[in-house]
Amino acid sequence: MTSKIAVAVGLVAAAFAFDAAAQAKPEDLIKQRKSAYAIMGFNMGSLGAMAQDKKPYNKDEAARNAQMIAAVADYPKGFFAAGTDSGDTKAKPEIWKNKADFDAKMDKMIAAVKGLPAASGDLAALKKAVGEVGGTCKACHDDYRAK
Amino acid sequence: MTSKIAVAVGLVAAAFAFDAAAQAKPEDLIKQRKSAYAIMGFNMGSLGAMAQDKKPYNKDEAARNAQMIAAVADYPKGFFAAGTDSGDTKAKPEIWKNKADFDAKMDKMIAAVKGLPAASGDLAALKKAVGEVGGTCKACHDDYRAK
Repeated sequence: MTSKIAVAVGLVAAAFAFDAAAQAKPEDLIKQRKSAYAIMGFNMGSLGAMAQDKKPYNKDEAARNAQMIAAVADYPKGFFAAGTDSGDTKAKPEIWKNKADFDAKMDKMIAAVKGLPAASGDLAALKKAVGEVGGTCKACHDDYRAK
Repeated sequence: MTSKIAVAVGLVAAAFAFDAAAQAKPEDLIKQRKSAYAIMGFNMGSLGAMAQDKKPYNKDEAARNAQMIAAVADYPKGFFAAGTDSGDTKAKPEIWKNKADFDAKMDKMIAAVKGLPAASGDLAALKKAVGEVGGTCKACHDDYRAK
């Protein structure tokens, strides 16, 4: 049994870079936060289009969008370690100069996102929730994301 | 109230590309699946390192890793539409030639991942679950992901 597990885990080693995970490079960390933001941005784009009546409201799609955003919203905050302020990133150096303010804005986004899944079932509620979440996104983007 | 919502949603429009979401380009779709895979790969790397005793087992970290993988595991399958077979992607053309087999391998991964969060609380169980999930990753990578 143990050797069967060892073989299976060996297969995993072939598929993933373990050493990189154990001692992640700055570019690996940047990629993680960017991946979560990409998923949030795409799904917010869909919800925003519904909220603006630019795309037909679809309850199931709205629920999926809202759940994906909620699933990854608190992931990026763990990936702004020292050394991740340069490279393939739009993160502005101000993040690390004003970390407390940045963290507070991040927390506001995370808190607002918690309301999205429940709101997704009703267009009027969704419009309100999208406005609230979007406001928290924009507040941080304005100060801390390069154009 | 309505105008307040309109202003708030307008703020969101400033932060996200709605038109791109309403009519997504192939490169946008590719970016979505790659983002989810990047998150899965990073977190599987961490779990794999623990399973191989290359990194100390930490129950809380393992739970976070497992939950993130579970949160995004079924996201990529929605982003292999026609036209997403070229560009910045390692997806091989065989995916679209053998779509039923590809989908079956994808479903096996999704099913295996469901066991990860519960297994993360015990190292022996985690090793077994990581081996099972990793095997489903590798089965698909071998056939359908370019080196």
